[in-house]
Amino acid sequence: MDIGIIGGSGYTGGELLRLLSQHPEAKVMAVTSRSMKGQKVSNTHTHLRKIYDLIFEDLTPDEVASRSDIVFTAVPHGTAMQVVPALLDNGVKVIDLSADYRLKTDVFEKTYKMKHIDPRDAVYGIPELHPEVAEQKFIANPGCYPTGASLAAAPLADAGLIERVVFDSKSGISGAGAEPTLVSHYPNMAENIQAYKLTSHRHRAEIVQELTRLDSGLKSISFTPHVIPSVRGILTTAHIFVKKELNEEDVSEIYRDFYQDKPFIRLIQGIPMLGSVRGSNFCDIGFEIEKNSDRIVVISAIDNLVKGASGQAIQNMNLMFGLSETTGLWTPALAP
Amino acid sequence: MDIGIIGGSGYTGGELLRLLSQHPEAKVMAVTSRSMKGQKVSNTHTHLRKIYDLIFEDLTPDEVASRSDIVFTAVPHGTAMQVVPALLDNGVKVIDLSADYRLKTDVFEKTYKMKHIDPRDAVYGIPELHPEVAEQKFIANPGCYPTGASLAAAPLADAGLIERVVFDSKSGISGAGAEPTLVSHYPNMAENIQAYKLTSHRHRAEIVQELTRLDSGLKSISFTPHVIPSVRGILTTAHIFVKKELNEEDVSEIYRDFYQDKPFIRLIQGIPMLGSVRGSNFCDIGFEIEKNSDRIVVISAIDNLVKGASGQAIQNMNLMFGLSETTGLWTPALAP
Amino acid sequence: MDIGIIGGSGYTGGELLRLLSQHPEAKVMAVTSRSMKGQKVSNTHTHLRKIYDLIFEDLTPDEVASRSDIVFTAVPHGTAMQVVPALLDNGVKVIDLSADYRLKTDVFEKTYKMKHIDPRDAVYGIPELHPEVAEQKFIANPGCYPTGASLAAAPLADAGLIERVVFDSKSGISGAGAEPTLVSHYPNMAENIQAYKLTSHRHRAEIVQELTRLDSGLKSISFTPHVIPSVRGILTTAHIFVKKELNEEDVSEIYRDFYQDKPFIRLIQGIPMLGSVRGSNFCDIGFEIEKNSDRIVVISAIDNLVKGASGQAIQNMNLMFGLSETTGLWTPALAP
Amino acid sequence: MDIGIIGGSGYTGGELLRLLSQHPEAKVMAVTSRSMKGQKVSNTHTHLRKIYDLIFEDLTPDEVASRSDIVFTAVPHGTAMQVVPALLDNGVKVIDLSADYRLKTDVFEKTYKMKHIDPRDAVYGIPELHPEVAEQKFIANPGCYPTGASLAAAPLADAGLIERVVFDSKSGISGAGAEPTLVSHYPNMAENIQAYKLTSHRHRAEIVQELTRLDSGLKSISFTPHVIPSVRGILTTAHIFVKKELNEEDVSEIYRDFYQDKPFIRLIQGIPMLGSVRGSNFCDIGFEIEKNSDRIVVISAIDNLVKGASGQAIQNMNLMFGLSETTGLWTPALAP
Repeated sequence: MDIGIIGGSGYTGGELLRLLSQHPEAKVMAVTSRSMKGQKVSNTHTHLRKIYDLIFEDLTPDEVASRSDIVFTAVPHGTAMQVVPALLDNGVKVIDLSADYRLKTDVFEKTYKMKHIDPRDAVYGIPELHPEVAEQKFIANPGCYPTGASLAAAPLADAGLIERVVFDSKSGISGAGAEPTLVSHYPNMAENIQAYKLTSHRHRAEIVQELTRLDSGLKSISFTPHVIPSVRGILTTAHIFVKKELNEEDVSEIYRDFYQDKPFIRLIQGIPMLGSVRGSNFCDIGFEIEKNSDRIVVISAIDNLVKGASGQAIQNMNLMFGLSETTGLWTPALAP
Repeated sequence: MDIGIIGGSGYTGGELLRLLSQHPEAKVMAVTSRSMKGQKVSNTHTHLRKIYDLIFEDLTPDEVASRSDIVFTAVPHGTAMQVVPALLDNGVKVIDLSADYRLKTDVFEKTYKMKHIDPRDAVYGIPELHPEVAEQKFIANPGCYPTGASLAAAPLADAGLIERVVFDSKSGISGAGAEPTLVSHYPNMAENIQAYKLTSHRHRAEIVQELTRLDSGLKSISFTPHVIPSVRGILTTAHIFVKKELNEEDVSEIYRDFYQDKPFIRLIQGIPMLGSVRGSNFCDIGFEIEKNSDRIVVISAIDNLVKGASGQAIQNMNLMFGLSETTGLWTPALAP
Repeated sequence: MDIGIIGGSGYTGGELLRLLSQHPEAKVMAVTSRSMKGQKVSNTHTHLRKIYDLIFEDLTPDEVASRSDIVFTAVPHGTAMQVVPALLDNGVKVIDLSADYRLKTDVFEKTYKMKHIDPRDAVYGIPELHPEVAEQKFIANPGCYPTGASLAAAPLADAGLIERVVFDSKSGISGAGAEPTLVSHYPNMAENIQAYKLTSHRHRAEIVQELTRLDSGLKSISFTPHVIPSVRGILTTAHIFVKKELNEEDVSEIYRDFYQDKPFIRLIQGIPMLGSVRGSNFCDIGFEIEKNSDRIVVISAIDNLVKGASGQAIQNMNLMFGLSETTGLWTPALAP
Repeated sequence: MDIGIIGGSGYTGGELLRLLSQHPEAKVMAVTSRSMKGQKVSNTHTHLRKIYDLIFEDLTPDEVASRSDIVFTAVPHGTAMQVVPALLDNGVKVIDLSADYRLKTDVFEKTYKMKHIDPRDAVYGIPELHPEVAEQKFIANPGCYPTGASLAAAPLADAGLIERVVFDSKSGISGAGAEPTLVSHYPNMAENIQAYKLTSHRHRAEIVQELTRLDSGLKSISFTPHVIPSVRGILTTAHIFVKKELNEEDVSEIYRDFYQDKPFIRLIQGIPMLGSVRGSNFCDIGFEIEKNSDRIVVISAIDNLVKGASGQAIQNMNLMFGLSETTGLWTPALAP
């Protein structure tokens, strides 16, 4: 497969390149960046020295499409909708890593406070929840928080058992991007933890969309994100209040059945942690049932740049091309 | 005031020494440690070199009492109850930093799964919630998590407004003590976050005790702790579901009134963070009300070793001796 | 003493404020910042909430001088020389924390590649090496690296024993300032260490000036700095090649004699580390002599923002006003 | 190739497993651990869940040999010499990751203060310096510090140009192993840097052996290690004093010629850093020549667990079996 990447200078672009270098069927043919035009890709992504000889180019969507079987758009929201139509018109497959096509158009416009110039349906690319990914030409790749949150709660939502859920998520700071900011300034982030957008993070809309798709009666879905002094990873603590009493075997069975034959989901006995998934496409899930209470705590751990972004995009690509979804992605985490 | 410290080799002992070195009315007369007996205190606490010439001694409670007006017991739970009675019999004031006297005896025995050999009432030393601290000879100094959690939710509990509260707390790893363990091993903790005791942490009993004291009808109190790659601090994210709609001014007023004239509580407009309280006795509190929802997110930030332990102990001491509660404690955090 | 601070929004300004809040004889009367004009100081320095009610002002040097007995200039190099003359003309004492007056004018102009508009002699304010600080009205406060390096090597330089010295210094990233950059971006700095200006850092000129003042024959002085994933501190590893064989007692005696009665120097048996000096004005020094070799490794540890900047400035202030040099500075480090 | 690993529970064992899982020609047939006997490998190495179904076994060398074409011994020094002879007697190839066979026997016994029970010559497995690796049945895999230091200085040593060299090395704490200690305790290591064995680290003997092999006249080789708050990586700052003046092109040419066709050496224009090599087998090297001085600063960056241990071992294995040395190892670093 010939691959094009639009927007290759950020973290998700770099991560696509890193992961695709290990993919036996993929060859990157074009990487665009307006600001880095003419420079070596490995000047920006120094970890890719000797791995790629590519140069960042400033190309039109048509030019990228002409070299590619599939194009990944790793650009900010609002920008993707400007290039996706031309790519699709060229007949190439497209996976959009931005937020532009993840939500119903009206929800998108309300959430992102902008007009959508290319209203269009797209399958939401969490393959474990959307097997129809395999038949698509166009995929909206999910947000990082919604991936961790939805995978943690989906089995219980699907079983209609959730009364109320509070997602308290803790993300590595790479999720905020490659541009230095006051929050990502080392002296501010180190030895700290920063809660933000306590009740209004835009990713909540994706979580609501996914969980109410599974259980239309689910009304109370709360989400509060934090950044922690880690580079990668999202740990989601899902405080789930259930409608009826469940024991450990009940819950285990619900999760086992729901995630049967899903290679990247690892249901574990203990408590998931970022250290077990760093750099990999796995999502580890564990849980504990509170005694004398209607609360179940489900924990999921993902790498925000892999399962939460570029790895999941390649998983989607594999399925869209009829490959095994693990092709090029069956690599363990880096630990310690 | 002449001070004795029983159990001076751990983090709370070291922190008592650090803070007392700045206290104009206090002089440390004895520091005990069985394992470090005969060694310089500053061998263990190298940051105290030149500040103290003290030697760790292996003394009986009577011997410590004979040199002290007040004794801090900074020993593990189960040990404090072996020394507190003798200290009190000697007529000295005592502040116990262990868990031994924080809970009603029956709750203690169920929670800590041990028989109490010295059942005795003690005032629970969060001075902002217990003004009666000032008249006491004996104080049970609170746990670190309960301090952050109780202070975050107390005003709304006191107003009878809480239907359900989920405390999702994130602690620096110093809370786990000075002894190396697998969890505190740098390669395991760095770039990670570790949830633990998802539904069964013993500190929950203290939170329940404090909040139901303020609102006996409050039934649903959940608590899940995490350790993050920071040394100090506890950030508590309190997801509070309230009984009736409240606007921002309502909540502000409730907190302002409740914490009027409490010098160490800082009610802030933005979102509290550990970086603003590190090394200090302050508790920063902020909140946000979710639109179209019954949820209020209240965040509190404390230093677990100061307001969560040794600083609060000295605050209690000040009050017990008729001093201003800020004496020796009115120091800003270390930032960045 | 009434204090003025010109340039209060950065890290050294914030650190002056933090330390001065604990000084029994000092009262801050003015803090300037052009960019933050009209805002509360504690909006920027959130750790100073409730400690200071000050507002950043945009004042002329004359206005600051009119409110002050002493003024600290915490501004970039090139800016200090624009305000220092007017301050001194007003008769106030001045401590300049910039690089503008640390070097002989010709060396300054060559090193900083700019014309000096106010050539003027100033005492270089490392009080342990310059007792004449006490009689001054104007002090050039030293750079952070030169403080750690000079204190590590001065006794052996003074004894004329050094043939060659390589300073390999490791600094916390706060030394690079409060402005976010690519180097200080958390994902770039975490789990990393970055050597920079391998042979050409401007602070070398200060080290050379100080050591050749003690031993004019000392020719080979090398310096290479690194930033490490810590916020505060500079650990200097001084690889010193000596002219004649020395044993441990020789070296100990040289250091003990040289630093006799210097309260902030702690000569230690083991190996200094940042954790013992964080937030304090101490400089810890230790050494080891290599067997069958002419090398001695001397290690010094300071907090770059305290002994390496604002703490040392206050130490100088104390001496200039006839106070004990430890006044308001006799505080232990924050550990852990 | 069928692989046996003796001592699989530590970091180098885990890293062998991680890397071998991506090797197209390798299959791990046995992993031993006495303490973890009977437990799943992925209980200890949780990042390997679903990647391996292996169980730790307690096997004799003969048993391991019977299942293997090549055996890696990842055990402490002193233990390797007890199993290597039996393995070699079985005719399998062996790569020993301990220190037991890296030094001439007399040097080993003096350095490690123990009697060697199996004196035997082994090729020192830095393939870039020892092309004869390819013909061996037994390789002594180098230490982590010596790999970074030797690769940094070898070209200039080989050219006979070094008068004196000081290696100031900074290692991630994973180099100290998987067992928690006071030094690796998170509150002690975070925000710190710890110099240790300032003049007497045992790895110096390997560096001396390698560099004097290239230049028998090189007399002054100094080495001081530090641990920094990073998990992985060694940055070596080599302060090299040369015998004659060299310009940038001279030095570039010496390095380019020396490392021609060495795939894992990346000579770079800027300054190497850990972030570019984390998790990979690359060694990045850069340098700067000091003006008006005889000093050249050469920086090398490696991952201590990969190029400094398990990755280099697999590189050696590839060569011993006639494979391309990059087989299974041509993966980029994990960044950010």
